[in-house]
Amino acid sequence: MTTNVAPLSHLILEPLVRLALEEDLGRAGDITSDSVIPFEARAKVVMASRQEGVIAGLDAAEIAFKLVDSTLSVKRLKAEGAEVKPGDEVMEIEGRARSILTAERVALNFVGRMSGIATLTNKMVKAVGNHPAKICSTRKTTPGLRAVEKYAVKAGGGANHRLGLDDAILIKDNHIAIAGGVAIALRRAKENAGHMVKIEIEVDTLEQLKEVLEEGADVVMLDNMSLEDMTAAVKMVNGRALVEASGGVTLERIPKIAATGVDMISTGALTHSAPNFDVGLDFRAAA
Amino acid sequence: MTTNVAPLSHLILEPLVRLALEEDLGRAGDITSDSVIPFEARAKVVMASRQEGVIAGLDAAEIAFKLVDSTLSVKRLKAEGAEVKPGDEVMEIEGRARSILTAERVALNFVGRMSGIATLTNKMVKAVGNHPAKICSTRKTTPGLRAVEKYAVKAGGGANHRLGLDDAILIKDNHIAIAGGVAIALRRAKENAGHMVKIEIEVDTLEQLKEVLEEGADVVMLDNMSLEDMTAAVKMVNGRALVEASGGVTLERIPKIAATGVDMISTGALTHSAPNFDVGLDFRAAA
Amino acid sequence: MTTNVAPLSHLILEPLVRLALEEDLGRAGDITSDSVIPFEARAKVVMASRQEGVIAGLDAAEIAFKLVDSTLSVKRLKAEGAEVKPGDEVMEIEGRARSILTAERVALNFVGRMSGIATLTNKMVKAVGNHPAKICSTRKTTPGLRAVEKYAVKAGGGANHRLGLDDAILIKDNHIAIAGGVAIALRRAKENAGHMVKIEIEVDTLEQLKEVLEEGADVVMLDNMSLEDMTAAVKMVNGRALVEASGGVTLERIPKIAATGVDMISTGALTHSAPNFDVGLDFRAAA
Amino acid sequence: MTTNVAPLSHLILEPLVRLALEEDLGRAGDITSDSVIPFEARAKVVMASRQEGVIAGLDAAEIAFKLVDSTLSVKRLKAEGAEVKPGDEVMEIEGRARSILTAERVALNFVGRMSGIATLTNKMVKAVGNHPAKICSTRKTTPGLRAVEKYAVKAGGGANHRLGLDDAILIKDNHIAIAGGVAIALRRAKENAGHMVKIEIEVDTLEQLKEVLEEGADVVMLDNMSLEDMTAAVKMVNGRALVEASGGVTLERIPKIAATGVDMISTGALTHSAPNFDVGLDFRAAA
Amino acid sequence: MTTNVAPLSHLILEPLVRLALEEDLGRAGDITSDSVIPFEARAKVVMASRQEGVIAGLDAAEIAFKLVDSTLSVKRLKAEGAEVKPGDEVMEIEGRARSILTAERVALNFVGRMSGIATLTNKMVKAVGNHPAKICSTRKTTPGLRAVEKYAVKAGGGANHRLGLDDAILIKDNHIAIAGGVAIALRRAKENAGHMVKIEIEVDTLEQLKEVLEEGADVVMLDNMSLEDMTAAVKMVNGRALVEASGGVTLERIPKIAATGVDMISTGALTHSAPNFDVGLDFRAAA
Amino acid sequence: MTTNVAPLSHLILEPLVRLALEEDLGRAGDITSDSVIPFEARAKVVMASRQEGVIAGLDAAEIAFKLVDSTLSVKRLKAEGAEVKPGDEVMEIEGRARSILTAERVALNFVGRMSGIATLTNKMVKAVGNHPAKICSTRKTTPGLRAVEKYAVKAGGGANHRLGLDDAILIKDNHIAIAGGVAIALRRAKENAGHMVKIEIEVDTLEQLKEVLEEGADVVMLDNMSLEDMTAAVKMVNGRALVEASGGVTLERIPKIAATGVDMISTGALTHSAPNFDVGLDFRAAA
Repeated sequence: MTTNVAPLSHLILEPLVRLALEEDLGRAGDITSDSVIPFEARAKVVMASRQEGVIAGLDAAEIAFKLVDSTLSVKRLKAEGAEVKPGDEVMEIEGRARSILTAERVALNFVGRMSGIATLTNKMVKAVGNHPAKICSTRKTTPGLRAVEKYAVKAGGGANHRLGLDDAILIKDNHIAIAGGVAIALRRAKENAGHMVKIEIEVDTLEQLKEVLEEGADVVMLDNMSLEDMTAAVKMVNGRALVEASGGVTLERIPKIAATGVDMISTGALTHSAPNFDVGLDFRAAA
Repeated sequence: MTTNVAPLSHLILEPLVRLALEEDLGRAGDITSDSVIPFEARAKVVMASRQEGVIAGLDAAEIAFKLVDSTLSVKRLKAEGAEVKPGDEVMEIEGRARSILTAERVALNFVGRMSGIATLTNKMVKAVGNHPAKICSTRKTTPGLRAVEKYAVKAGGGANHRLGLDDAILIKDNHIAIAGGVAIALRRAKENAGHMVKIEIEVDTLEQLKEVLEEGADVVMLDNMSLEDMTAAVKMVNGRALVEASGGVTLERIPKIAATGVDMISTGALTHSAPNFDVGLDFRAAA
Repeated sequence: MTTNVAPLSHLILEPLVRLALEEDLGRAGDITSDSVIPFEARAKVVMASRQEGVIAGLDAAEIAFKLVDSTLSVKRLKAEGAEVKPGDEVMEIEGRARSILTAERVALNFVGRMSGIATLTNKMVKAVGNHPAKICSTRKTTPGLRAVEKYAVKAGGGANHRLGLDDAILIKDNHIAIAGGVAIALRRAKENAGHMVKIEIEVDTLEQLKEVLEEGADVVMLDNMSLEDMTAAVKMVNGRALVEASGGVTLERIPKIAATGVDMISTGALTHSAPNFDVGLDFRAAA
Repeated sequence: MTTNVAPLSHLILEPLVRLALEEDLGRAGDITSDSVIPFEARAKVVMASRQEGVIAGLDAAEIAFKLVDSTLSVKRLKAEGAEVKPGDEVMEIEGRARSILTAERVALNFVGRMSGIATLTNKMVKAVGNHPAKICSTRKTTPGLRAVEKYAVKAGGGANHRLGLDDAILIKDNHIAIAGGVAIALRRAKENAGHMVKIEIEVDTLEQLKEVLEEGADVVMLDNMSLEDMTAAVKMVNGRALVEASGGVTLERIPKIAATGVDMISTGALTHSAPNFDVGLDFRAAA
Repeated sequence: MTTNVAPLSHLILEPLVRLALEEDLGRAGDITSDSVIPFEARAKVVMASRQEGVIAGLDAAEIAFKLVDSTLSVKRLKAEGAEVKPGDEVMEIEGRARSILTAERVALNFVGRMSGIATLTNKMVKAVGNHPAKICSTRKTTPGLRAVEKYAVKAGGGANHRLGLDDAILIKDNHIAIAGGVAIALRRAKENAGHMVKIEIEVDTLEQLKEVLEEGADVVMLDNMSLEDMTAAVKMVNGRALVEASGGVTLERIPKIAATGVDMISTGALTHSAPNFDVGLDFRAAA
Repeated sequence: MTTNVAPLSHLILEPLVRLALEEDLGRAGDITSDSVIPFEARAKVVMASRQEGVIAGLDAAEIAFKLVDSTLSVKRLKAEGAEVKPGDEVMEIEGRARSILTAERVALNFVGRMSGIATLTNKMVKAVGNHPAKICSTRKTTPGLRAVEKYAVKAGGGANHRLGLDDAILIKDNHIAIAGGVAIALRRAKENAGHMVKIEIEVDTLEQLKEVLEEGADVVMLDNMSLEDMTAAVKMVNGRALVEASGGVTLERIPKIAATGVDMISTGALTHSAPNFDVGLDFRAAA
């Protein structure tokens, strides 16, 4: 199975890969390969998965190899979002050996991180089972890599929440407290928000939820609620808003949360705590 | 206990925090706070740890708050590298409520990630016990954040390996294979390396190690060796080079690896798979 | 009357002003003032409106003066979004004469452009009269200045549409044609859109509108419809979606469009064709 | 008729187009086209003028399409600076439908703005008739777009004034006032200016002009003078300097100003108030 | 004696100093000072000249110290453009010892290079003696540092030529050859140049000069002419254009070239071959 | 003879060349060539050495020509690091004449500066004769061009020292003084330095050297020592550390310094005072 994710624009992805290469090359480049490998040596390598999961980041890897040396040839053996097993080959690279070795780590760092996120997302998506709930990311992303990490969540079958502070309104507990209550906060939000902006509000209790429903909102976030309260909340809302569960989301608990009937289950862990996906380069032959 | 880590230069850290804020603010800024919170509302908040570990990233957090609003006042309650328990307060921020809410997520994203790395590093450092081995990071860092993550490793009591491809030579298996052997690879490296550059070489077997010792190197990396081989390798080297253990490094296995007498134990997990450290902002009062 | 617009974050605005100053200073700076004005000469100037309208861009102007010379003192005499008449003083600047003259043009270019947009927006807002329709901008903005121009629209009392391609879905005629119809386009959009993303679709005819209403959408855009069709459309929609009028929007026609009962009237003219607002610096005295 | 304008260097133009695309794509790209249009769908579109005027910005448009997708094929149907009528086709683009739709708005924003400037310039140039006066731009340009707007003026048949503060000296009324008079200001300018720098000075009265002519200058700017005074000024100058008319320049008044014999007529309106040129993309066929 | 040079705008200078610091700090900052110097240690140092010449670059040095640590206090002991002797103190810096040591090299690199240029320029200016000729720089500057180097030439008492390709016209031998002669080249230049742009043309022979004078130009450059031909050329020109001598300019030959009556003597050596000026930091005391 | 230098990564070199071109093109590009040279004119030029030395910077030159116009064809006639004589042709460029003229100066500025450094380095390398000493650069490089200048040193046969403050430890006199002595400084350095970082320390006297040898260091720098003291120092060290001579390094003195047996001779003059290498473009024919 392969998720059907639209590629991230080269205009967004390329500058991030370039930055990572510049960071690694520093002021003198790959002094190991430049010293040890003859300039004319060529190689053929295969990027292979060392674990089970969902592969993502191959676009970034290809850009890394091409930025280091535009004469390298790159062949895709798996699509973005494909499920892989240990040993599965995902990409083949052929050309100047120095160039391949220079780009290797940056390419793998992107694939490792992005596949890690896609894989964890995919596990959670599967844990939802037949319930309708979508698994969603948050803004708890790595500084500078939000676009890439949000894309990886989609590659894993998940969905995204806000991309940033400016594209949707999410009223949290502190906003409510400072504003002076749910009603006033929602009213101000509606007054100021453009017509293409959705409004979500966080509630901690069923009482708060009642207030929200009186005022109206596009989405309500049930924050750290018990499964019983979530079930009651979904019933109370009764289709008048989308319902998002947040807080205490673990792989084990997801089936139960999903069973409450919520529309979305969101967790920062997708992006801030997904372990790296194990992937490496295998040298096949001096090409 | 607080590790004694030199602060990362503002010239390195500030652009990264700025980038993260720009990423989050997008084209219109924090439309939630701007809509819901009165311009003149003020607040006093405390950043508090929600778990046990080592705190890092407070410089980044302070920069985030100040970049959003230079009139915010920030007080440090813990030093970088300090050990904390759940509930420990690490920073106090006071001023315009909108500004605090706008900067919150970016500040927490830095502290969460950096403290996560520092905490995992610290656990591994403690697992070494009385053995002399140092815990080291690798180049398996998040694209764009190498400086920050290498700093977090030091805040956790660890040590760093190369910062990039250009500051030291590390000859790996593929370099050796393409170059045509250990001896030729080392000789080329010495010929080309400047006098301020150290040379390390990876070995998979004791036979390879013998070859290396004949040719000479500053550091040898024992890659994925059994504990028995590591012990034998340390004996063979006998002080003629530093010895680094790599591959299969887990918290459980570290005491045994350390007991072999190696000088360094390195693992990419410190930077690519450290789970996020749980930290949050608590609102105290409308200031 | 002053609109109550939240200031654009310094993190967004400052880089744009800096860029404009760098563009103007080139490789040698203000060679006229540096040659002609003694280094120690001081001046006091007043920025004054030369026409009637709504003032905007004073934050940008203040940043321009301060970036050129942080010792300049700047006093605001009008708030952002204030209505002004010819001769009204909006800002007072005092300090080194060279610095004031160097920053003058960039400061005025921002205020002229932004007040021009705010003023045209405000005229259109007033033309709506007591009808509920909001005046909205589009993505027809000046390359690089979208954040600033969207802000100016709000300063003039208008509202904003999408900030970019990534924060909301707007299905236009060509999307529909290539996708193969209204229903399939809407269905694909809903499938792929995150839950915080609104979906709008453009319709040219009442038949198309019917199709849209069967499938459901957050907003429908009536493109270049006659006033009669707009009236019929609003009735057909009957609150099931927001209704946006687009195409052929002029100051003269706005009252009639608004009278049809649409929720939003959008026009690119706000940002791509607003004439510059006339504003200048008057020298008061050598300070 | 097509003006013979040298293309703006790709090194100057490409970064501006890239910036505009990044601004529009945000953190997730074109979510509408990515959702609604099949990845493999292809299209053929024609960019067509919807009004009469002078076309400019086709280089920028081509760069926009190519940056989004380097496999798009672009054919020019009109040259930069060509006069066009409603319906005239100026460019044909063929390839992946998603890519065309993603780049469309940025491409049109450049062509709309640049053709708007070229068209207004051209009208003014024609209003000069057989008189020798050139129509000139000023530094009243859109922040960040000076190079592009100055180029558009030339595409319309106009000429340019200073590009920035550093490439020529223009002594204005406030410079004169603070310096202490025309003579001292001119003397200081000559002393400090390099030999490749021209010196212009603004005069408000014929008395001031007399002073200027005694001291000598390359160009005199007659600021807001009556037609009678302009005529007298041209006579007084008698070829000893170039004469530029400034202030109160409208299409209607240009023939009369030109008839006074001035060498240049300059106006900020060319760049700060030219209405957008109406141009659009017409879909021809699924290619 | 101190030349009276206007300071280079902070907006131009600061980014260059920042870049140099980032280049030096790399990914981990000053690991020597951070390791060896206690965090709280303070110092007082004096920047002192080790040779005779003209000092320049103190603004850059101050920015370097302040960017590293905004709490450092910096006192100027000499003005930009001042003549200094060995041992003369030019700046005093006091504060955190680590910060001073971290910024030291970048600060000295700027002062060394800029004072080197100012000093060589000043020697050439003095070699001109009582003749009116000005010493001019060219576009043979260090990539990225043109603004800084052109400023240093002025600090040394020299004058500047074009700042870049876009602010003046300089027709060289190859332009003439490809265009098809002096007359056609000059005519095209006049036709295309804006009225604020000066036109210079290079001539190799007196015959070419005659052609130029018939067509007219603002400046003529005598390229690699003998002293006799220069004298003849100045006579031929007779005030109808400025005359610039270029080629074979050495300190020894300058008096003779100046004696021919030329207006400018230009040489790339000012910027591309000026030896570094010897300047260092002396530690006075732990402050 | 051609040194065998690995090319500097395009990722490092291209942005520097781009910056230099943007600096030269300014806001309007090459107005001379655009005015004077017909758009369709073609040319064939040869870059030729005008002096004896070592050529470097041809990669940068090729990038400059290609960035201005990707259709130019460039042929290498000499390799980087090759020794050349006056008149030797090093590169041939063919294509649009305007483009060649536009890129000419930037291309030559890079080749002139880099070959100047390579040539001076090479002279010093030859002056060492049969002694083993290597000629080394320092951090006294041009702001922003360290990577390029360090590369040029290698092209000339020299070696490099630290690339920046972060890749090796160099304890200088002021570090020692503030730390409180050689022993404490070295101990702190070893404690903090990673295992891939070399430690060097500067000594002024043989007494200090003794202290260093007791504590141990990778490299000792003999600062401004007499030839006698250097000879004694080499004997004292007796292979326990590398020995670097610094201070008072001139072409004349190098053979004597080398004869003392030191391992490295380092001098800032390589990068801060190498005179420009004379190289030019010769037009061959309208291609």
